[in-house]
Amino acid sequence: MLTLASDFGSPYPAAMKGVLRSRGVTDLVDVAHDLPQGDPRAAAFWLRFVLPEFPPGVHLVVVDPGVGTDRAAVCVRAGDHALVGPDNGCLLPPARALAAEHVGPDADPADAIDVYAVDDPDPRSSTFHGRDVFAPAAARVHEAGVDAIESLEGFVRADDYDDYAIPDAWVESDTASGEVLVVDDFGNAVTNVPGDFLEGRVGETIAVETAAGVREVPVVETFADVDKHDPLVTVGSHGFVECDANQGRGDEAFDIAPGRAVTLSFEEEVSATVPTA
Amino acid sequence: MLTLASDFGSPYPAAMKGVLRSRGVTDLVDVAHDLPQGDPRAAAFWLRFVLPEFPPGVHLVVVDPGVGTDRAAVCVRAGDHALVGPDNGCLLPPARALAAEHVGPDADPADAIDVYAVDDPDPRSSTFHGRDVFAPAAARVHEAGVDAIESLEGFVRADDYDDYAIPDAWVESDTASGEVLVVDDFGNAVTNVPGDFLEGRVGETIAVETAAGVREVPVVETFADVDKHDPLVTVGSHGFVECDANQGRGDEAFDIAPGRAVTLSFEEEVSATVPTA
Amino acid sequence: MLTLASDFGSPYPAAMKGVLRSRGVTDLVDVAHDLPQGDPRAAAFWLRFVLPEFPPGVHLVVVDPGVGTDRAAVCVRAGDHALVGPDNGCLLPPARALAAEHVGPDADPADAIDVYAVDDPDPRSSTFHGRDVFAPAAARVHEAGVDAIESLEGFVRADDYDDYAIPDAWVESDTASGEVLVVDDFGNAVTNVPGDFLEGRVGETIAVETAAGVREVPVVETFADVDKHDPLVTVGSHGFVECDANQGRGDEAFDIAPGRAVTLSFEEEVSATVPTA
Repeated sequence: MLTLASDFGSPYPAAMKGVLRSRGVTDLVDVAHDLPQGDPRAAAFWLRFVLPEFPPGVHLVVVDPGVGTDRAAVCVRAGDHALVGPDNGCLLPPARALAAEHVGPDADPADAIDVYAVDDPDPRSSTFHGRDVFAPAAARVHEAGVDAIESLEGFVRADDYDDYAIPDAWVESDTASGEVLVVDDFGNAVTNVPGDFLEGRVGETIAVETAAGVREVPVVETFADVDKHDPLVTVGSHGFVECDANQGRGDEAFDIAPGRAVTLSFEEEVSATVPTA
Repeated sequence: MLTLASDFGSPYPAAMKGVLRSRGVTDLVDVAHDLPQGDPRAAAFWLRFVLPEFPPGVHLVVVDPGVGTDRAAVCVRAGDHALVGPDNGCLLPPARALAAEHVGPDADPADAIDVYAVDDPDPRSSTFHGRDVFAPAAARVHEAGVDAIESLEGFVRADDYDDYAIPDAWVESDTASGEVLVVDDFGNAVTNVPGDFLEGRVGETIAVETAAGVREVPVVETFADVDKHDPLVTVGSHGFVECDANQGRGDEAFDIAPGRAVTLSFEEEVSATVPTA
Repeated sequence: MLTLASDFGSPYPAAMKGVLRSRGVTDLVDVAHDLPQGDPRAAAFWLRFVLPEFPPGVHLVVVDPGVGTDRAAVCVRAGDHALVGPDNGCLLPPARALAAEHVGPDADPADAIDVYAVDDPDPRSSTFHGRDVFAPAAARVHEAGVDAIESLEGFVRADDYDDYAIPDAWVESDTASGEVLVVDDFGNAVTNVPGDFLEGRVGETIAVETAAGVREVPVVETFADVDKHDPLVTVGSHGFVECDANQGRGDEAFDIAPGRAVTLSFEEEVSATVPTA
């Protein structure tokens, strides 16, 4: 099985599928081709979310704002999976998630990760490496098998490669400061605050502070716990805190977008003016 | 074969595909993942339209405004097909269409339909049942086969379930009153008035009355029977009357949207003022 | 393998997939279903670009502004590929590209092309020939094999069929006049000026003249050779000259759209007013 993900829109992904089919890869699964354009961070988030659902396979991931520069092509082995794409760091977060499943909770995921630089001295074009560099490389990995990457010509173990780390939020017991990672098609604004922050707080009111101001909303188990269109804070299916609206758009309700700062707080506001006796 | 339909946009459907692949279902067909969001009515219409084209299989359908509520998960057997999704009624119209094909014109489709409540006592999340409840249930039905649903643990015959019925239009010989069910990507506004209403009337002029006013347009066999961009009324490929425009958008030409009322009439307008002799 | 391409949006393509699956075609590959609506020219361009990447197969292509008219259905054999769709000319440019690969550089692609009219005397509908005429015809070709088209009932060799030719640009050594063929999802404006025109000119400044005025921009090897959002001219992966912007939209930077004229010139502008001594 080989999955495809890109920010190519349409119909460019079909050219990659054609290359893969021509090289004998018949079992193709589209992950998404409308990942946010030129945004390796968003790709890292989404692939970390969806790829661990898949059985072992090769994952072709092309979000490549640096196409035509001398950024390398990389292949990342993660347990019994392999990821192939440009060297911009977005393969590492999903690779760590895949490796963590492979080694189990008592081992270091890094032990199951190897990164290879992929040399392609003379690509057919300088503008469409998805078709001309990454798809052919992924087809070779698919044919050889994840355990045989080492033996592939042009694949060389690399120590120096980009590694995008999903930024950590700053979390205390009653307050967390982070940022919006992505907004999904429903308008749910996913932050980098870990879901643990809300543990045991369902039913409480939380203050959501953004550049647009402060909104106090309920912490809920599920969307349907508030009225239609009402804002809420919950833990999403990816394990992070989301700012959402029931059957509405959270990004609009909270006026936030990817990259924007957000502070979540359970602290009671102390009145600024204290009445004199 | 297992088909997938949802209102998830992207990339959430990939998580469902991963779950299905991990459980051994390799033959996946995407029906659509951009069904109108949170609109089981539109899902019912579209799936009733497209699923009967498919050979026997399992159909995973997730349009779920009630995710996280205690609405049940259901599996509907319809002849040699099965549909799996939330209990909001949208599976029944396509199930009846599939059952009707199965039993033929002389029998009652209801005889070929069984509904099962699917129990999942402890889903992995409360926000992404497509991945955590419905995809696993569909994989189990796919593996066991449609005839073995009865034997699956957690699948219990149900008599009390939601059943959305596509609303009937009110039809007389020269007048029909109904509503717009969906607007497709071309802007064609599909009503619930059965195509029979236009039988033998091609070439006549019909009055289309909406909240925006009355437009008189030709009844045609096909779009090309009017000039480019001109409005028309015809019978669509789903068997219902459509308000369209040739190479243009019918919804804009008639100023209508899903859920809006529409009256179609062949009656000659009687002049409001009668000239005195 | 059978590929599908259309301008149907969603979920109409699923009806075609159902028809194909019901007729035993299991290996389906989506090329694109959001080709520009009712625009056989754009379809011709994109399919000429992507189909040659695929191994031999049957390609169902439905962009059909003339649905319901008496335009024929055609099947075009091109080497060991076959294309099936409405007779509006858009199958011939990709067919020529496929045939050229088949016969090699020393022979005439036309020798590897045969066009068949496909007779379907009584289609199920007059509005959805993708489902009712073209998908069934493609399934028959897929089952019989490309070499057996001749023997299929209702397939008759045709001499009189539409043939859309991608328009030639007018090219001199320092100036080329052409038009924009398509704009892709990144905003890259692809012209019909062959890439050869820029050979050896990387690093020079080129004047791009459109109805909106003249912009002087660099000719580059790759997007990253200019600053973020800056405009540029380069050769795209399809071999034509593109007007682009690095991580921005070329169509907006140059204010151009499909069908608009564009003149590219390396000639130094002669000052209109010559200073007197």
